[in-house]
Amino acid sequence: METEKIVEAMRECVGATDVVGNAVEMAHHLIDWRKRHSGVAACVVFPRSVEQVSRVLAFCNANGIKVFPQGGNTSVCGGSVPDANGSSILLNLAKMNRIVELNAADNSVTVEAGCILADIQQAALDADRMFPLTLGAEGSCQIGGNISTNAGGTNVVRFGNTRDLVLGLQVVLADGRIWNGLRTLRKNNSGYDLRNLFVGAEGTLGIVTAASLKLYPRPCAKATTMLGFHDVRAAVTEGVKLQARFPSELVGLEVISRSEFEISLKHAAKTRNPFEKTPEWVVLVELAATSGSSEALTDQLTDYLRGSFEEGTIQDAVVASTEQQRADLWKIRHSVTESNMKEGMGLTHDIAVPTYRIPDFVEQAGEALARHYPDTVPVVVGHMGDGNLHYIVMFSHEHWARISDKPRTQLELSHLLYDIAAGMGGTFSAEHGIGALHVPEMSKYKDPVEVALMQSIKNLLDPLDTMNPRRVLPK
Amino acid sequence: METEKIVEAMRECVGATDVVGNAVEMAHHLIDWRKRHSGVAACVVFPRSVEQVSRVLAFCNANGIKVFPQGGNTSVCGGSVPDANGSSILLNLAKMNRIVELNAADNSVTVEAGCILADIQQAALDADRMFPLTLGAEGSCQIGGNISTNAGGTNVVRFGNTRDLVLGLQVVLADGRIWNGLRTLRKNNSGYDLRNLFVGAEGTLGIVTAASLKLYPRPCAKATTMLGFHDVRAAVTEGVKLQARFPSELVGLEVISRSEFEISLKHAAKTRNPFEKTPEWVVLVELAATSGSSEALTDQLTDYLRGSFEEGTIQDAVVASTEQQRADLWKIRHSVTESNMKEGMGLTHDIAVPTYRIPDFVEQAGEALARHYPDTVPVVVGHMGDGNLHYIVMFSHEHWARISDKPRTQLELSHLLYDIAAGMGGTFSAEHGIGALHVPEMSKYKDPVEVALMQSIKNLLDPLDTMNPRRVLPK
Repeated sequence: METEKIVEAMRECVGATDVVGNAVEMAHHLIDWRKRHSGVAACVVFPRSVEQVSRVLAFCNANGIKVFPQGGNTSVCGGSVPDANGSSILLNLAKMNRIVELNAADNSVTVEAGCILADIQQAALDADRMFPLTLGAEGSCQIGGNISTNAGGTNVVRFGNTRDLVLGLQVVLADGRIWNGLRTLRKNNSGYDLRNLFVGAEGTLGIVTAASLKLYPRPCAKATTMLGFHDVRAAVTEGVKLQARFPSELVGLEVISRSEFEISLKHAAKTRNPFEKTPEWVVLVELAATSGSSEALTDQLTDYLRGSFEEGTIQDAVVASTEQQRADLWKIRHSVTESNMKEGMGLTHDIAVPTYRIPDFVEQAGEALARHYPDTVPVVVGHMGDGNLHYIVMFSHEHWARISDKPRTQLELSHLLYDIAAGMGGTFSAEHGIGALHVPEMSKYKDPVEVALMQSIKNLLDPLDTMNPRRVLPK
Repeated sequence: METEKIVEAMRECVGATDVVGNAVEMAHHLIDWRKRHSGVAACVVFPRSVEQVSRVLAFCNANGIKVFPQGGNTSVCGGSVPDANGSSILLNLAKMNRIVELNAADNSVTVEAGCILADIQQAALDADRMFPLTLGAEGSCQIGGNISTNAGGTNVVRFGNTRDLVLGLQVVLADGRIWNGLRTLRKNNSGYDLRNLFVGAEGTLGIVTAASLKLYPRPCAKATTMLGFHDVRAAVTEGVKLQARFPSELVGLEVISRSEFEISLKHAAKTRNPFEKTPEWVVLVELAATSGSSEALTDQLTDYLRGSFEEGTIQDAVVASTEQQRADLWKIRHSVTESNMKEGMGLTHDIAVPTYRIPDFVEQAGEALARHYPDTVPVVVGHMGDGNLHYIVMFSHEHWARISDKPRTQLELSHLLYDIAAGMGGTFSAEHGIGALHVPEMSKYKDPVEVALMQSIKNLLDPLDTMNPRRVLPK
């Protein structure tokens, strides 16, 4: 269909003011925030209701127009921009951003898919509750995108992935049918669990338009420490011990390599090194509790650390005693992505292995890199409690510029690392998802029966391949 | 196919000694433990490996033989016995009962589907860990059945349903293909979540043959109290407060009506009333912690209760100060099912509503019963923290014997109650599942789009309707 006709049809579906077709206004929707993936589209459509989404999908499905869904456009694997075809539409949920109902007694909140994550967090706090999903992009990412990618972040060690926080969903299917599965029940064994089929499907099976989410009591006490270790094995051993000692209170357990730590301190404004001597590995620990005081929780943590210190497993430790000190420690962690972009060309590998295998992975990956890519630096930051490492291979900008076949280098390097993770029962995509970037790995690393099952489900729910085509699954 | 030929074929699949075809040995597999549902089968097949299960399913699927899966046969809705056809097989997983690997450092255990739940709990304790799933039938139910029905129980308030404890699955599909999805990763965003499609599918989409499960640190401290209330509204108000005050420690929050409490005390051996004056509503509370002592945790609980007591919300409270006292309080709760069977004919309704609506449900259901079934007694026991009530309508044996059209009475009564739950955003099946009994409610209470989606998934994965036919979904 011609672009003009598509735009006209979309205006009929959602109203003229909510369809954007000019190049200037569309531009920032067509490229990802790291400027690594881009595409084109006939227009960007901003529906305001589930009925409008239904009309858009029914029309597109019936007329062979592909639909690329977009939330806050914070994907790191090309999952939030359209492809190069141009005669498709980009469906952005930003104007469906109402908090429909927050019920503190029920510990639940029902929201439209375009709600910014930080707005949901704030609404929960205002009701003396907590919505535990927290991640770097929380100021701009939309909950619909979080749900569609089963987003992770720093609280997973205690509260699980986004999947674990979703009680109910409203979804528009490829043909425009609306599944109203919004509910806040904690138990409901009445047939197949469709909810988890759409969570993490990256918009390839339908559009999540609203969700009912779990809330938790708001913590009133926090304790934060940054620990230094001689090697990664000591760091992981201590992390496992912390998980066993504080299974309910441990809400954050982040690991940072010396290389990453130094890059963050070098490029991020207003950071300073809390250690006199920078350790080889750094672990950031946060405890939270819903009773008692931060002072008492910090005392508990300090008592515990004293024991580990005497055993000699910890090399150095900094305990935050004020809110400012706590913020300063987290600032180093939260600055890594922006700092890495300034440092060079970092190729990120979002792997996971069982937590206790992290030291083996780091050792084997380091050896492989030294052998095959001697001029690169391994830079590691990860959610240790979930076995999830962002293993970043850092090329200097000059080095990267000299590489002639960049896609090939990227593919070969990543398979070198993914092979190691796979050998440990691990995965090549822990929390970032597949998007456009990791489709080849789906064929290479997944069980063929599993991929065939996924393809048959895609074909069942979207037989005309309308939704986010060529994403997630190999043909 | 003739019975003899089916038996012969099954012997070729699994070996002669693992096929049982004579009526005497088959008898207890063909009727449920409450003697309410029964069926017939050509034989009972006991595979010893995933390859044998694969062979059995491939043969049955190719030859039009229906397969009814069975675990510990503890279903309460006719989900674990075959239908009346007779030319089908019953596939019992009892001989696949190995604990394949327990890894304490990884907090995971991988087991075959026929493992008895209590054996898994014990293996976890032996490794200084805990597998939190706990329910009345734990001494005989199999984990494959727990997974296939997404079993609930008394720990859900803290650790979630079985679904939340499953890290990975091995499943044999209707056509005999094996999906090897066994893994222990906490994060894995690589395509659709097939795992949750099979959890709770009640064996209609394939046979779960093995699972990787989450373990937790073993608690070293417990505190238990039984509270008495004047009315259900006060009981729920206090329960919500307890959840907010002890969100990490609260592992059990059970509610019992006076009628149920008295039935349990009347019929169960070695129970005694801990209260001087029996309250209208009883709440059993258990806290657990992985540090500190039971004495300290009990002190915390007692301090808290003193406050509630002074506010006048709690009428009476008994705090266990020894392990024996704790066991005595739980004994009353655990005796309800057997006691109800002695008391009369109890029709159980496994409903859930948002927790804070429990008082409304109890009030409205009580009024409806008094109006339409004046000679019955409402008997209530439930997992209050999850909004899940087992709302039992008790007929005396004599009264029940006089009712001419029992199925019709059962259906009309249940729809009276389910209508009330549905009006509060609730469900007619919280944790027991659908089985054969609740298929009519799937059409009546579920969103038609949702049922159509489920039917299309069933048709995709089991196009010849080999697996557990006429269970879960209406035709």
